Amino acid sequence: MTAELAAALFAPRSVALVGASADPAKASSRPLRFLRRSGFAGAVYPVNTRVTEIDGEPAFPSLDALPEVPEHAFLMTPAAATVDAVRQCGRLGVPVVTVLSGGFAEAGPEGAARQRELVAVARESGTRVVGPSSLGLVNTRTGLTLTANAAFADPDLKQGGIFVASHSGSLIGALLSRGAACSHLVSVGGEADLGIGEICGTAVADPDVTGFLLFLENLRHADGLRTFARAAAAHGKPVLAYKLGRSRAAAELAVSHTGSLAGEDDVAAAFLADCGIARAHTLDGLLEGLPLLARTPVSGGARVGVVTTTGGGAAMVVDQLGVLGIDVAGPTPATLARLADAGAPAAPGVIVDLTLAGTRYAVMSAALDVLLSCGEFDLVVAVVGSSARFEPEVAVRPIVDRADRPGLAAFLVPHAPEALAMLAAAGVPAFRTPESCADATAAALARQAPRSVSPPAPRGTGPVRPLDEAESYAVLAEVGIEAAPHRVLPVDSPDADGLRFPVAVKALSAALGHKSDVGGVVLAVDTAAGVREASARIRADVAARAGVEISAVLVQSMEAGLGEVLVGYRVDPDVGPLVLVAAGGVLTEIYADRSLRPAPVDLDTAHRLLGEVKGIAALRGHRGAPRGDLGALARLVMAVSELAMRGDVVEAEINPVLVRPDGEGVVALDAVVRLRDGSTNGDAA
Amino acid sequence: MTAELAAALFAPRSVALVGASADPAKASSRPLRFLRRSGFAGAVYPVNTRVTEIDGEPAFPSLDALPEVPEHAFLMTPAAATVDAVRQCGRLGVPVVTVLSGGFAEAGPEGAARQRELVAVARESGTRVVGPSSLGLVNTRTGLTLTANAAFADPDLKQGGIFVASHSGSLIGALLSRGAACSHLVSVGGEADLGIGEICGTAVADPDVTGFLLFLENLRHADGLRTFARAAAAHGKPVLAYKLGRSRAAAELAVSHTGSLAGEDDVAAAFLADCGIARAHTLDGLLEGLPLLARTPVSGGARVGVVTTTGGGAAMVVDQLGVLGIDVAGPTPATLARLADAGAPAAPGVIVDLTLAGTRYAVMSAALDVLLSCGEFDLVVAVVGSSARFEPEVAVRPIVDRADRPGLAAFLVPHAPEALAMLAAAGVPAFRTPESCADATAAALARQAPRSVSPPAPRGTGPVRPLDEAESYAVLAEVGIEAAPHRVLPVDSPDADGLRFPVAVKALSAALGHKSDVGGVVLAVDTAAGVREASARIRADVAARAGVEISAVLVQSMEAGLGEVLVGYRVDPDVGPLVLVAAGGVLTEIYADRSLRPAPVDLDTAHRLLGEVKGIAALRGHRGAPRGDLGALARLVMAVSELAMRGDVVEAEINPVLVRPDGEGVVALDAVVRLRDGSTNGDAA
Repeated sequence: MTAELAAALFAPRSVALVGASADPAKASSRPLRFLRRSGFAGAVYPVNTRVTEIDGEPAFPSLDALPEVPEHAFLMTPAAATVDAVRQCGRLGVPVVTVLSGGFAEAGPEGAARQRELVAVARESGTRVVGPSSLGLVNTRTGLTLTANAAFADPDLKQGGIFVASHSGSLIGALLSRGAACSHLVSVGGEADLGIGEICGTAVADPDVTGFLLFLENLRHADGLRTFARAAAAHGKPVLAYKLGRSRAAAELAVSHTGSLAGEDDVAAAFLADCGIARAHTLDGLLEGLPLLARTPVSGGARVGVVTTTGGGAAMVVDQLGVLGIDVAGPTPATLARLADAGAPAAPGVIVDLTLAGTRYAVMSAALDVLLSCGEFDLVVAVVGSSARFEPEVAVRPIVDRADRPGLAAFLVPHAPEALAMLAAAGVPAFRTPESCADATAAALARQAPRSVSPPAPRGTGPVRPLDEAESYAVLAEVGIEAAPHRVLPVDSPDADGLRFPVAVKALSAALGHKSDVGGVVLAVDTAAGVREASARIRADVAARAGVEISAVLVQSMEAGLGEVLVGYRVDPDVGPLVLVAAGGVLTEIYADRSLRPAPVDLDTAHRLLGEVKGIAALRGHRGAPRGDLGALARLVMAVSELAMRGDVVEAEINPVLVRPDGEGVVALDAVVRLRDGSTNGDAA
Repeated sequence: MTAELAAALFAPRSVALVGASADPAKASSRPLRFLRRSGFAGAVYPVNTRVTEIDGEPAFPSLDALPEVPEHAFLMTPAAATVDAVRQCGRLGVPVVTVLSGGFAEAGPEGAARQRELVAVARESGTRVVGPSSLGLVNTRTGLTLTANAAFADPDLKQGGIFVASHSGSLIGALLSRGAACSHLVSVGGEADLGIGEICGTAVADPDVTGFLLFLENLRHADGLRTFARAAAAHGKPVLAYKLGRSRAAAELAVSHTGSLAGEDDVAAAFLADCGIARAHTLDGLLEGLPLLARTPVSGGARVGVVTTTGGGAAMVVDQLGVLGIDVAGPTPATLARLADAGAPAAPGVIVDLTLAGTRYAVMSAALDVLLSCGEFDLVVAVVGSSARFEPEVAVRPIVDRADRPGLAAFLVPHAPEALAMLAAAGVPAFRTPESCADATAAALARQAPRSVSPPAPRGTGPVRPLDEAESYAVLAEVGIEAAPHRVLPVDSPDADGLRFPVAVKALSAALGHKSDVGGVVLAVDTAAGVREASARIRADVAARAGVEISAVLVQSMEAGLGEVLVGYRVDPDVGPLVLVAAGGVLTEIYADRSLRPAPVDLDTAHRLLGEVKGIAALRGHRGAPRGDLGALARLVMAVSELAMRGDVVEAEINPVLVRPDGEGVVALDAVVRLRDGSTNGDAA
């Protein structure tokens, strides 16, 4: 199936250009011109209801009139006519259509209805659809320049091994014009049927494809993206993505632009990392990063060394790497001694600065040999100064001659096109700015293998039901999470016998969101009489302020600890189950101090999550304070993440988790769980 | 003086090349070659003790043998011979020498001694010195290519209006090769005599100079930089700087590289902003930013609009701007209506997306006219897609035709050299990446006019003396800062009569740094007997744990408030007096949550400082909590900053300042002040 789809997408024997224009000023006139110029060998059938000839070639009045059923139809018809055209393609048995027109899901209720119809027609007929709003697709090897993107007017399309896929059609042109050496370029558009992952997935085994560049506006087809990313990893092909939505403004933008809700950026970051997709944060990093990914082992080390003849240029790279959290370390005294012995002496320091003496082939060569073999660096970045421009044979040749060493990259301080070409030809990762060098390095060194375990798909489609605090504790207890001792008592006769005082008295009701805000919590109650009094007050307050009649209170012993943390779980509409840890209280909001991962996570990952929350530093024995039981906290995080294996929990939040001193464990002090109907746990209520 | 210095630096009638080599492989052979190639019209005298001819020109055996006293000598001698050469220049009356050699301040005690000698010789003779470690300087108009930087081997030096000055010699070549159109380029080196500010200052009135690009590794000559920045502002010439040291690693690097201590990066940021120097954070932003600065009013608005034909490309810019804190806003409905009336309709949203329809001259022109005249935007960024590459006359001409409108800039999504050239020729700021566009935009919009008031130079050179808590309060009282009520009592008979309990009892000694860490503080003492007991305990603990015998305690009433903040003052060795505000307690350290400014500050600036500390959000009525008295806090910050006007306070820290509810003021709960000897306040002790 994949092979057939791949062939129809990128190597069809025949294509129809439905709605091709005879007016060269119109975008819909471009594909025919582009296909001819790029020497596409298959049959090309322009379809136009009004003219009989376009660019000297015969045009056909309809799809029915073609001499054969095309393997791929590019529909350039208006939105209103497009669904019918797809229906016709389906009837004829056209395997793939690409839809240029907009006016679907992003265009209000009418457009959404049109998109539903498009999808239904495609599903029914088996015809697969790229788009809508796709500017088309290109295979540089077969000359299939099936696109209305003006960028492909370039007579010389640079061939290479990069498969580019983009939610934005204009970006495929931009990447091409900026020198990306591509095998394929696809504008995936609105992904009504074929998602970006499925499209890329058709090419993972293609020997002409060496890696993938993605420009993402959303993660609507996260499952397909994950499947593709795993396959790419299995074939040893790196995937590098630029994802819009780092700022709040852009996240809102994606809503209006595509009609889909863009998620928070840290969710996207966690998802992409979990899939083993490296993420670039700069356009140049996206363009220049793949060669580095291709040569950097997944889950390899992150020890970066910098060697140079130009201190200022190297310092820019070190600085940018530091901003991204990668601290460059200098060589050990032993390695400095080896450098001196090899005729490439350098002063101790973060940068191996050979000074002007290093602008000789022998000196730089000797330095590279020592640094690449000393075992102290996972990546050596050579920063080359002005000589890269004027004497590449002296300045860049030592690097090119070591192109077989994977842990080597270059940053060229001047504009040095000849040197860049030499490095590119040799396959050495080369960067034109300190920012792209640092961006790609950070992306490459952070990359992990994609996780192979997936949680089961969430079950049920019924309404979501919040549980009350006691029910929530019961669900959490099933995954081994301990709550502070508590008892549910009738609100009108709360018998507090046998409780360990002081206690907190809390309204028990699934209908109350924030209990404290409506007088639903009384803390530090010391006596049985106090419990009765608090219960009466809570009942009255909650009735008055929230309009909720409660029948029971939850009485819970007050516990002492070193600090409080929020641990949450939720099923994201795009990327699925997530586990989240945040600093407690006001810190979470003010400092956006949280970290998250696709769930479930193992214990190592849970520890890594804790390490990423800055506020938790206060529980690590900061400034001589006692250490909290972070081992127990990590186990709790792992347990919460395992809610993903049940399939019915939509959301869970333990806020706070009380962290006791090391060895004394952690305990939930409050919790809310929300289940989707059909829950196996419904009986616990 | 400045005119004479400028002439000797950049337009000398004669230059000597001392140590010029006859071996074309050596760097010291370059200046003669470069000067001849660039057509320098003045006299050039190579000086070489061993050969009589270089490149077919006569070489002179010594400076004394020259037919005239050169106006500028470029010394390419080894470090050991350099001071003597400068001495000789001084004796002959050479106005300026540029020193290529390293081996001075950065090279250990011997180098430091050499540098002291160099400075002494220069001061004595009146000869001014560029360097040491200077790769030289260039004036593209006079053909003065007085440099050993290989980058200037380029036969065609692009002329323009940019004055480039750099601590790193290699960077001047890099900027040149990357297309900067320069009037002057200077490698300022180690600044033993002439600092970067003084050198730039010679050119502020030069009509050929339109702006300044600085590459800074340190702020050692901050005063000179500030003087220059004020002069540049007075001449309406923008200054854009790239400053190394954003990461901790690079800050450490600058120490080893230049021998000077690099300050924290937020100090550098605050200093540059205070001087009106815009700061770029990317190399491309530095290269591309000046035209935008030249057309953006200082302290102008920050309302950015984005118009495009290519949604994905525009979204990248919006996203990057958002990351840098600039939220792009869409046009109002009224402006959308005007756009529609003008034939350039766009859907409501953050981006004015004209879609493919906008790739016509008339449509983009109409849209620009509406957006530039609607009064809703201080800057309109036009994002141009593939047509910028293939049809610049259609896609870029509408922008070029509005080059007289200041609030207009362009980002070109594809590689489009012809369009870039058109925009550059018209003076329209144009950017090649979303990152450089956002970087330069943020730098331009954040720019303020340089502050004209300077504090007096710090007085005295004697040792620094810490004051005890009571003395510190007395100094703070002089600028109007209130401390919580307190009394100093003898440690052996602390008479607590008339105190308002509860109180804190604290060891009183200028010798104790952190009182609490050595048992020097007892809180919440309720009775007179308790004060006696606490005093005795403190005396014993402090003696045992810190080895300090105290004779007095400070007893202070315990005060209640909404939150605590740290307010500090210090004299930075580079940039001078600073005032600093930080979130209290552990937050400051964990979240690096602080903000600072050169002192003194006015009330507006004090409020801005408070606004930059995230933790203070909790005092702004966050989530319905009561509001703190931020007005009083801002007044306190201003008062602390006025310590700068005394000239003898080296450091002051009030930690904590207690913030009471709005209207109830703020109060210092602890304080340390350190004075330099010769203090007018010494008697307060």
